[in-house]
Amino acid sequence: MKEVEVGIIMGSSSDAPIMRQAIEVLKKFDIGYEFSVVSAHRSPQRMFEYAAAAEGRGLKIIIAGAGGAAHLPGMVAAITTLPVVGVPIKSSNSLDGWDSLLSIVQMPGDIPVATVSVNGARNAGLLAVQILATSNSTLREKLAAMKKENHEKVLQQNETLEQF
Amino acid sequence: MKEVEVGIIMGSSSDAPIMRQAIEVLKKFDIGYEFSVVSAHRSPQRMFEYAAAAEGRGLKIIIAGAGGAAHLPGMVAAITTLPVVGVPIKSSNSLDGWDSLLSIVQMPGDIPVATVSVNGARNAGLLAVQILATSNSTLREKLAAMKKENHEKVLQQNETLEQF
Amino acid sequence: MKEVEVGIIMGSSSDAPIMRQAIEVLKKFDIGYEFSVVSAHRSPQRMFEYAAAAEGRGLKIIIAGAGGAAHLPGMVAAITTLPVVGVPIKSSNSLDGWDSLLSIVQMPGDIPVATVSVNGARNAGLLAVQILATSNSTLREKLAAMKKENHEKVLQQNETLEQF
Amino acid sequence: MKEVEVGIIMGSSSDAPIMRQAIEVLKKFDIGYEFSVVSAHRSPQRMFEYAAAAEGRGLKIIIAGAGGAAHLPGMVAAITTLPVVGVPIKSSNSLDGWDSLLSIVQMPGDIPVATVSVNGARNAGLLAVQILATSNSTLREKLAAMKKENHEKVLQQNETLEQF
Amino acid sequence: MKEVEVGIIMGSSSDAPIMRQAIEVLKKFDIGYEFSVVSAHRSPQRMFEYAAAAEGRGLKIIIAGAGGAAHLPGMVAAITTLPVVGVPIKSSNSLDGWDSLLSIVQMPGDIPVATVSVNGARNAGLLAVQILATSNSTLREKLAAMKKENHEKVLQQNETLEQF
Amino acid sequence: MKEVEVGIIMGSSSDAPIMRQAIEVLKKFDIGYEFSVVSAHRSPQRMFEYAAAAEGRGLKIIIAGAGGAAHLPGMVAAITTLPVVGVPIKSSNSLDGWDSLLSIVQMPGDIPVATVSVNGARNAGLLAVQILATSNSTLREKLAAMKKENHEKVLQQNETLEQF
Amino acid sequence: MKEVEVGIIMGSSSDAPIMRQAIEVLKKFDIGYEFSVVSAHRSPQRMFEYAAAAEGRGLKIIIAGAGGAAHLPGMVAAITTLPVVGVPIKSSNSLDGWDSLLSIVQMPGDIPVATVSVNGARNAGLLAVQILATSNSTLREKLAAMKKENHEKVLQQNETLEQF
Amino acid sequence: MKEVEVGIIMGSSSDAPIMRQAIEVLKKFDIGYEFSVVSAHRSPQRMFEYAAAAEGRGLKIIIAGAGGAAHLPGMVAAITTLPVVGVPIKSSNSLDGWDSLLSIVQMPGDIPVATVSVNGARNAGLLAVQILATSNSTLREKLAAMKKENHEKVLQQNETLEQF
Repeated sequence: MKEVEVGIIMGSSSDAPIMRQAIEVLKKFDIGYEFSVVSAHRSPQRMFEYAAAAEGRGLKIIIAGAGGAAHLPGMVAAITTLPVVGVPIKSSNSLDGWDSLLSIVQMPGDIPVATVSVNGARNAGLLAVQILATSNSTLREKLAAMKKENHEKVLQQNETLEQF
Repeated sequence: MKEVEVGIIMGSSSDAPIMRQAIEVLKKFDIGYEFSVVSAHRSPQRMFEYAAAAEGRGLKIIIAGAGGAAHLPGMVAAITTLPVVGVPIKSSNSLDGWDSLLSIVQMPGDIPVATVSVNGARNAGLLAVQILATSNSTLREKLAAMKKENHEKVLQQNETLEQF
Repeated sequence: MKEVEVGIIMGSSSDAPIMRQAIEVLKKFDIGYEFSVVSAHRSPQRMFEYAAAAEGRGLKIIIAGAGGAAHLPGMVAAITTLPVVGVPIKSSNSLDGWDSLLSIVQMPGDIPVATVSVNGARNAGLLAVQILATSNSTLREKLAAMKKENHEKVLQQNETLEQF
Repeated sequence: MKEVEVGIIMGSSSDAPIMRQAIEVLKKFDIGYEFSVVSAHRSPQRMFEYAAAAEGRGLKIIIAGAGGAAHLPGMVAAITTLPVVGVPIKSSNSLDGWDSLLSIVQMPGDIPVATVSVNGARNAGLLAVQILATSNSTLREKLAAMKKENHEKVLQQNETLEQF
Repeated sequence: MKEVEVGIIMGSSSDAPIMRQAIEVLKKFDIGYEFSVVSAHRSPQRMFEYAAAAEGRGLKIIIAGAGGAAHLPGMVAAITTLPVVGVPIKSSNSLDGWDSLLSIVQMPGDIPVATVSVNGARNAGLLAVQILATSNSTLREKLAAMKKENHEKVLQQNETLEQF
Repeated sequence: MKEVEVGIIMGSSSDAPIMRQAIEVLKKFDIGYEFSVVSAHRSPQRMFEYAAAAEGRGLKIIIAGAGGAAHLPGMVAAITTLPVVGVPIKSSNSLDGWDSLLSIVQMPGDIPVATVSVNGARNAGLLAVQILATSNSTLREKLAAMKKENHEKVLQQNETLEQF
Repeated sequence: MKEVEVGIIMGSSSDAPIMRQAIEVLKKFDIGYEFSVVSAHRSPQRMFEYAAAAEGRGLKIIIAGAGGAAHLPGMVAAITTLPVVGVPIKSSNSLDGWDSLLSIVQMPGDIPVATVSVNGARNAGLLAVQILATSNSTLREKLAAMKKENHEKVLQQNETLEQF
Repeated sequence: MKEVEVGIIMGSSSDAPIMRQAIEVLKKFDIGYEFSVVSAHRSPQRMFEYAAAAEGRGLKIIIAGAGGAAHLPGMVAAITTLPVVGVPIKSSNSLDGWDSLLSIVQMPGDIPVATVSVNGARNAGLLAVQILATSNSTLREKLAAMKKENHEKVLQQNETLEQF
């Protein structure tokens, strides 16, 4: 069984459709992950314990997504020393994503959150891969291959374009 | 010695000049308070314990001020059942106060933070008085007197205006 | 018959679907309330009288919701000494809620409005409960129970998540 | 003695330096005015009475300036049927004028406020003149003369420009 | 035949559904109007001639609506000395109305535009009535009656509310 | 004497310190220009005539700068068929440049304004050079040389950096 | 076969429906163009080569559209000395177009991008025509004819308006 | 001599005072770094080569800061597979940091940039440490020690607070 290296957490199960996009990337790179709801606001004790135990449990990165006044990524980053990737979610109670973005990215000194774009869970997954690849040459090769694929896709889009 | 009913906390001692304006109001109404730095990000365990113990220690209201990605008011509200008054601070690392405001006011369902205006610590103090006054007729009378004073000041401003 | 402790008012009957979410919370905590349209702009005299009489009629808290240039919460707070909870409504004539939020939360000194999130009427109701609970231990116990329920729901969401 | 046709009011004496710019225009056009502090929030009863009595006292237009959550222009417009000109003030407690602007201009149906630019008290005065000029041909001639003067000033600016 | 006192113009026929709301008000108050497309950008000469001729043709007020970079109200105000009421339109090419609002309200000194809310054509019509009423006591009486009606409607809304 | 190919205009002489940065570029590329105040709002007839005559007078490009509700670039573009480069100015009456930017860039279909950054008059000058260079190989060579110089400056900055 | 003078590029084929509006204009003016996907992010080498080769291949103008963090127009402008017209796209991953607009228009000194409105590809095409017309009198005549057509359309809209 | 693991680059030497804050952190953790100006806009070829060579030269992380339309972090991320940390700079040509923030964080799918707060170079340095610590237990211990220090500082701030 694969070792879990990336913890994906979110403030509510309604964030799951967005956050699952991180899983797709991790699967593609064959990286072990776990996926759960850890609300900073509705289950603060659980959030605290999750963050405090993460490193000891062997996690290397935490991806945290939340909407509105999104405190989950920043609070987890306050507790763990693992790198935390924050995903602002444009949820139903959000002011078009502005509140989620600002409450995740504008962290004070000494508590960074690596913030990706609004609803950018796919990029959060890829950033996790890039971080793991800093000490894993197989992952580095796969990342390079993926860049090539992306370039191919651009060329393919051009062929489709002619037929528009 | 007066019983402490209002806990005033802030994310950093640099927020103190603004947050002290809450104290002035509480003093005027002769209400016991305490004043301390409780950073959600730099001292999460201390924040957790402060919020969890507050009700048991006899506090009735917590006023929490923070700037930037301001998680302190919301996290305290997640832990305690006391009413939490949030003060967005326009600090040096804030995007003109917009990040502080949104990350305090846009709380998800079931975890309210009673948010006042940016840098509105004076109003936070007064809101605390109004809350205590719901079960204290002496405070209600003092609040009514203060409204009269404010009206007097408007009249006085008009007299000054003539001499402009 | 239950004593009415919370007055819920709104600028227009079109705000009712949002504002009714405050009622659900008050009912759950068995708190007496009243619910009516009191427009600061279309019925200023009625607004004035409502606010001026509220305390004498035994109300302890007023929850006021409004959209666009939302003056109702602030004007009621100018007249009464009761705590006023403001709910910014994202109505059809609102600039995505920004105008409602700013015209409610940015009150000047000495006239606080306890502002909740855009469309956050549920939280307004809960804040009212928290305020009443400062002098009511039964309510405090119920609030603590509700926090536990919320934590349970997070655990349940995780079980559902597996079946996604 | 000249009849007072324009009432200039503001939420605080700190708004006076901006609001006085309206006076300069009215003086230039020889129109009677009055100038006073009428706070919607600190003196709501006075505001109410001022607005309700304005038409009977012979006023034809009210110019109202306020900052932050600026309710004065809209509330006066709710009470009187006179045209109300609103001046958003970028005051010390304002979010760079955005809150003042939105809480004045975004009025609901049936309660218009004729809003000018942030700190645009001079234009508020001129708009009052234009309104009075709809039934006063002397004022219309003066307004036309002023437009010519402005054109002259542009030509003069060009001469200065050469010497830069 | 009724004399035309109010010119209603707009930048594009696509603005007509909003701008027609001004007509409804003028009809109710039995005021003569005209309604046409006068684009500052696609027909600048026509705009220029319209604005320059307006006063001579007996118009007393111009209501101008436009979306996006909305120059029509301000340019007409630059040419005529009549009061110009500006209506920001949230059109398909607008950034949610923000561009329309700012490019209408933020006029420089000496060229006021009486700006109403985004899509607030109804209020533009009513503001025109208020302006005409400064020299017409019949209109003033009708405006007072309308305020009473609005108050009645609030009471009626409350009756409906019970049946929700 | 050099032929004037670029007309630089601005809404007010207070915009001159910014707009002069366009001149520096044109001088460097030895391109004839003229520089004047042409206010859309205070001298609309002059603006109209300037724009209508520009092409006949041999101008090839117009650079127009303005602040606040900045209508000059768009109105000139409405009248002439020459390319118009718009410079949003962060002037004293501007909402931090947002109003200037939006009222210049958000032009409707068929009336483009080539908008540069807020206060970006230098880039406006350079864009004019690039446009003229589409039919002038000498200018193209000079532009290529300038790109090389910029690259050199980056290298120089790095040398300075070591001595920080 | 017509010479290609305008290169139209975009970051993704999903931008094609907007960007095709530029083609319509170029076709109308009988100007040769090419249309392709050149992603700055997914195919940086291709972008680099495209921009570096453009002038040598005879292109005179590049129109570049992109959404979100839109780097394509600015990066192409960094590499070529041709005028670059930037089209901010309100794509699915964009914050309502604000990110696209700011990341295109706010270019640093010496690297202008001629920015048009959000989704303003039609205007980008027309700006390209205006630029080419600076050295082509036939195009200038066609542009003048188009202005007349637009004026006619305004008159036609007015006729339709009567039948509303 | 220490191996260089982190490349710190910025768009202009004027960004150096902010970006140097990243160095302080790296020094504290005894991590090798390099520091240079690599402008995406003024030296695109240099940027391209820097990004393409980074991994081969042994770098593990790139920290990139830029202001205004900030393309450097995203373009470097487009070329390398290393994790890129982006620092939005509130530079003189920036719209209060909003343009820098959005043009760095809102990256499209497959090209993440780990964005920190506006001017948050200190946090960028710390994020780099956290990333390296995922495969370095000594760094993990140092990070844990730093968290303890931060907690101590909060306690010390409280002692100072008493003496205010």
